[in-house]
Amino acid sequence: MTKKNELLSQPIQHIDISQHNVVPLVDAMSKMAYSSRDLARAANIYEMMLRDTECGVILCLAGSLISAGLQKVIVDLIRNNMVDAIVSTGANIVDQDFFEALGFRHWIAGDEYKYGAGDAELRELMIDRIYDTFIDEEELRICDETTEKIANALPPKPHSSREFIRAMGEYLVREGRTPAKGNADSIVLAAYEKNVPIFCPAFSDCSAGFGLVAHQHARQGKAMLSIDSAKDFYELTQIKILNPTTGLLMIGGGVPKNFAQDIVVAADVLGVEASMHKYAIQITVADVRDGALSGSTLKEASSWGKVDLTYEQMVYAEATLAFPLIAGYAYHKKAAAARKGKAFAQALETVNV
Amino acid sequence: MTKKNELLSQPIQHIDISQHNVVPLVDAMSKMAYSSRDLARAANIYEMMLRDTECGVILCLAGSLISAGLQKVIVDLIRNNMVDAIVSTGANIVDQDFFEALGFRHWIAGDEYKYGAGDAELRELMIDRIYDTFIDEEELRICDETTEKIANALPPKPHSSREFIRAMGEYLVREGRTPAKGNADSIVLAAYEKNVPIFCPAFSDCSAGFGLVAHQHARQGKAMLSIDSAKDFYELTQIKILNPTTGLLMIGGGVPKNFAQDIVVAADVLGVEASMHKYAIQITVADVRDGALSGSTLKEASSWGKVDLTYEQMVYAEATLAFPLIAGYAYHKKAAAARKGKAFAQALETVNV
Amino acid sequence: MTKKNELLSQPIQHIDISQHNVVPLVDAMSKMAYSSRDLARAANIYEMMLRDTECGVILCLAGSLISAGLQKVIVDLIRNNMVDAIVSTGANIVDQDFFEALGFRHWIAGDEYKYGAGDAELRELMIDRIYDTFIDEEELRICDETTEKIANALPPKPHSSREFIRAMGEYLVREGRTPAKGNADSIVLAAYEKNVPIFCPAFSDCSAGFGLVAHQHARQGKAMLSIDSAKDFYELTQIKILNPTTGLLMIGGGVPKNFAQDIVVAADVLGVEASMHKYAIQITVADVRDGALSGSTLKEASSWGKVDLTYEQMVYAEATLAFPLIAGYAYHKKAAAARKGKAFAQALETVNV
Amino acid sequence: MTKKNELLSQPIQHIDISQHNVVPLVDAMSKMAYSSRDLARAANIYEMMLRDTECGVILCLAGSLISAGLQKVIVDLIRNNMVDAIVSTGANIVDQDFFEALGFRHWIAGDEYKYGAGDAELRELMIDRIYDTFIDEEELRICDETTEKIANALPPKPHSSREFIRAMGEYLVREGRTPAKGNADSIVLAAYEKNVPIFCPAFSDCSAGFGLVAHQHARQGKAMLSIDSAKDFYELTQIKILNPTTGLLMIGGGVPKNFAQDIVVAADVLGVEASMHKYAIQITVADVRDGALSGSTLKEASSWGKVDLTYEQMVYAEATLAFPLIAGYAYHKKAAAARKGKAFAQALETVNV
Repeated sequence: MTKKNELLSQPIQHIDISQHNVVPLVDAMSKMAYSSRDLARAANIYEMMLRDTECGVILCLAGSLISAGLQKVIVDLIRNNMVDAIVSTGANIVDQDFFEALGFRHWIAGDEYKYGAGDAELRELMIDRIYDTFIDEEELRICDETTEKIANALPPKPHSSREFIRAMGEYLVREGRTPAKGNADSIVLAAYEKNVPIFCPAFSDCSAGFGLVAHQHARQGKAMLSIDSAKDFYELTQIKILNPTTGLLMIGGGVPKNFAQDIVVAADVLGVEASMHKYAIQITVADVRDGALSGSTLKEASSWGKVDLTYEQMVYAEATLAFPLIAGYAYHKKAAAARKGKAFAQALETVNV
Repeated sequence: MTKKNELLSQPIQHIDISQHNVVPLVDAMSKMAYSSRDLARAANIYEMMLRDTECGVILCLAGSLISAGLQKVIVDLIRNNMVDAIVSTGANIVDQDFFEALGFRHWIAGDEYKYGAGDAELRELMIDRIYDTFIDEEELRICDETTEKIANALPPKPHSSREFIRAMGEYLVREGRTPAKGNADSIVLAAYEKNVPIFCPAFSDCSAGFGLVAHQHARQGKAMLSIDSAKDFYELTQIKILNPTTGLLMIGGGVPKNFAQDIVVAADVLGVEASMHKYAIQITVADVRDGALSGSTLKEASSWGKVDLTYEQMVYAEATLAFPLIAGYAYHKKAAAARKGKAFAQALETVNV
Repeated sequence: MTKKNELLSQPIQHIDISQHNVVPLVDAMSKMAYSSRDLARAANIYEMMLRDTECGVILCLAGSLISAGLQKVIVDLIRNNMVDAIVSTGANIVDQDFFEALGFRHWIAGDEYKYGAGDAELRELMIDRIYDTFIDEEELRICDETTEKIANALPPKPHSSREFIRAMGEYLVREGRTPAKGNADSIVLAAYEKNVPIFCPAFSDCSAGFGLVAHQHARQGKAMLSIDSAKDFYELTQIKILNPTTGLLMIGGGVPKNFAQDIVVAADVLGVEASMHKYAIQITVADVRDGALSGSTLKEASSWGKVDLTYEQMVYAEATLAFPLIAGYAYHKKAAAARKGKAFAQALETVNV
Repeated sequence: MTKKNELLSQPIQHIDISQHNVVPLVDAMSKMAYSSRDLARAANIYEMMLRDTECGVILCLAGSLISAGLQKVIVDLIRNNMVDAIVSTGANIVDQDFFEALGFRHWIAGDEYKYGAGDAELRELMIDRIYDTFIDEEELRICDETTEKIANALPPKPHSSREFIRAMGEYLVREGRTPAKGNADSIVLAAYEKNVPIFCPAFSDCSAGFGLVAHQHARQGKAMLSIDSAKDFYELTQIKILNPTTGLLMIGGGVPKNFAQDIVVAADVLGVEASMHKYAIQITVADVRDGALSGSTLKEASSWGKVDLTYEQMVYAEATLAFPLIAGYAYHKKAAAARKGKAFAQALETVNV
């Protein structure tokens, strides 16, 4: 076996929340202190969001979550009507989820690689590292190229990232990258099938960016596809207008958090009196003290008129520990039993900008 | 005096690195341990970047830096040929720098507001809070509206964020919001005048987003302006191709860090054998252990072929402490004495996508 | 109901690991990334420690853990032969565990108190706060006074903290503060009954300190009890000499971590060739970058010859989340099935210094 | 040159605050945001503490500060009447300061050692590592042995750590380890000469612990020296009683922070109505969210009646960056000009317990 094959031999496996009834554990945490109590309260707020059937749930994703084994949690939330729209970094959706949908995997790296001791050798082997996880760079290039093909097949005009990601879902169906055909399930596929729109407000900042750059380079002087980030914002704001009660379930901060919070103000700019997000949860390890958005409290967001103060909870914990517990809690409490999917993607098809 | 005026009475004042010769202090730090030694090494690498006149310096900005008093540091770097391109979150450039260029200020908040105790009242008063700093929301709405006016005046087609921000610079000149006319200097203005391109890869995720949403809403069914994030990536990659030796000076992580790192790979996708970023510094308080990009080490980036291992340094410190010391060190060592501005913005005017 | 009673109405309840079989959950985490994978590896190492029946397990406690709902986890470890010696801050053992053994409780504080907004009022009400938890200061004074009584009853000479804490256990038995008499179980009691020695190397730095100061003040010029921290170190070192194979299960860092690590070197000073700690786990949120001991890696400890590199794992997570999972994993895997208590306290009775 | 000599070739050099007038820099920081503003306020409070000539200033030290280049800052504070008592971890005082006073040095480690990649080799070479700093373990053993000699020479009865550390100062004078004899200055020496008492409440938890264990082992069955941590607490409380107005200047948290805060309550236990610490500053990177004492806010301490709310400031920054700025600010503002040393050590000589 070559060194590369050896290093890429233990795949990351996605945790399956349906197999772990964490309700008693999380209930016990609610009587403790610190992060466990915060986590239990967040789980409780997520349950409330789902039982409030008026509420549209927006899931925000930042940080490398899919490569870390959280893909199936999110697929399960989508397929069980527990999330209605997604705002994400491009990496989670394209480099990691779509990448796995194409048949590739992420790999467990040995502890000795975590702090960079082997990076020069990894470079030689074309292995990319995310902290304690490996990726085959050659496979990632195939992912880049696939996004170029999808770009080439779309009409040469401005698209929202949502429209592009929907085309990625169509691609997976067309190519048979579905569980029905014996392949893995994915967020892009599940969202496509359940009409859950996915937005990546900085869409070129990922594997798709490489495909888009190649597309635009090849089309110089001709009609070409572009990615209109203003259209993303316009569309997401339409969801707030169509469905006034909203809740945010946020993993990490960054652009997805800010973008989803801002639609309250954007609706107002469009002349629609919009209520603040009624529910908000954020799981993060970021710190409040550098003033950056990622670690800023939800209380702070309320000063901006974006998030209501009544049902908000920060959970300062790493997502692989906290997210399965929160999502699993709502899942096993059957919080979405009375809930139907909101199929926002369908409504957005008729939005014209 | 009303309560609102009282709360908005002590303005944030931007530190002036030209007034503080920190060279002996930073040199002393190089013989100590922990963050001080790391900071000194980073200052030394920034000095090397500037003395290497082949090197194009890309400044990446994430986190609320301008509101925190770091505007003048960046203006001084631009005006002294110490930075050649900027990649930023939208908030720094539009909501904070352009906002101050329009004549508005940020305000010191009392310690008792830091953790959210007064947020309900701030909401009533239309005061927005960033940790320990206040903003007048009514003034921020004027900033939003100004970006709509600028959008309305541009040709109704896809633009890169760089093109839009350049139009913001033109607007400032046209409106006399310049030091020559007795007004404050700004990053947008200085960059416009020095032909330093500014990119915001998630451009709708800021005050400009509100202007753009309003613009697109008003133009429904007609020709309208859009923001092409793929074009941003294409243009920034052209800089790497035009000027192969590059260095990154990064404050915070997020999209700007990823975007700027990725151009090495994007050049490769366009068939140009590009060298890794030769120098790289990052100031951050983010942690490596959640696997998120913001805290990921520059060694990790080298596994991706993006950053060379020889001259890289993470500085785990809050930017208001660390950035004036690093920038001031290079400034007072006159590291850019033999350097001319690279005026990349001019070269980009001829790029056609 | 008075305001004080209202604030002190929801007691912290200690999590019961016997009720939550976390084995499948932790096993799933071992295939993920970041903290979850680290946690799973730590749980696995704790299991190994226990299956290695030669190994003496030393539990180190720092941070306010008992007030946070972790008392019963530790009681269960003691009663199930899963820990052989404890090194702790005084607060955990005296102010929190012994305090609860006297019949007092810790109370859940509302979220609005976390950041200090109500501290002036709490002062008036004689309510002490630990982040999100309340304590009745008048009850704490009773705890202080009880330690003075215990001091007064002991022979007036130097004692190790272990000897004093053993006397606290005797006190609980004598006073009927036992489950057999319908009262709560406690760490001090369980350790007394199971002959598990407890050391607090900075023993005056807690509620007992107040009792000791009062004792010494009353005895001025007469024979008095003193607390010999050198004797603590001598005794703990004897354990290493008696039982060469050792493992560390550390929650938090600080003095307990350093003290327990150091006995390898101390044995060497006494002329006994001691092996490094064979197993070591630490749960902490502290950071490595300030060079402080609390966040220093176990790899670093290996450079000092204190901890072996083969089976060590840092888990960067808050203890209320991580400790029940790690302890519960070993508990439900019945890792201690073949293990007997080592009753080190008995052996120490014969040590003369 | 052998590998060991090569690794131990670049000494840590202690920063000299008298050489850096940081007043204008810190004043500029007071108009910014985040950590810089907090730091400026802390510097201002330290200045106030010193100008309030009634105030006794207690310096608390935790974390490896002396090895990091902060020895001379503290020596200068002592010699310039800017600190009246010190509470520290043992490592700072014995393993690091006294160690350097004996003529040994700390050494700069290459970046590649920070994360443990070379620890197995360091073990072979008998080099101990503190994050990015090296220590010669053979020299450290000499330090251990010196403390045994000092123990052997003292009367065989309970001593406070303060008494022992005073004997260490005497030892340095006797052996000519003084600047007057061409040797380095040290904290232990300066404190001895200026009658500034130094307390290490967990005194066996350091190099001295090894010496004490050896001493007690050799004296089995005979009269021996012991370290009475209760006496430490009693003595420090006497300072609060003698000098009611007090201020805390804390670097790091841990035992020193708790111990110094607690003397307000201890005075009360002795029947003396003591005021809370009037001023308090803490520099730390610890986090509030795990409820541990190290990161707990000074507001929280006020709920315990230990610290007054009016003049308190947390500075969340690493000490090598923040402490020279805060100490240097007060130094260059000549805040102690009207101040005399309080010579608390003299008063304590007459305390009998």
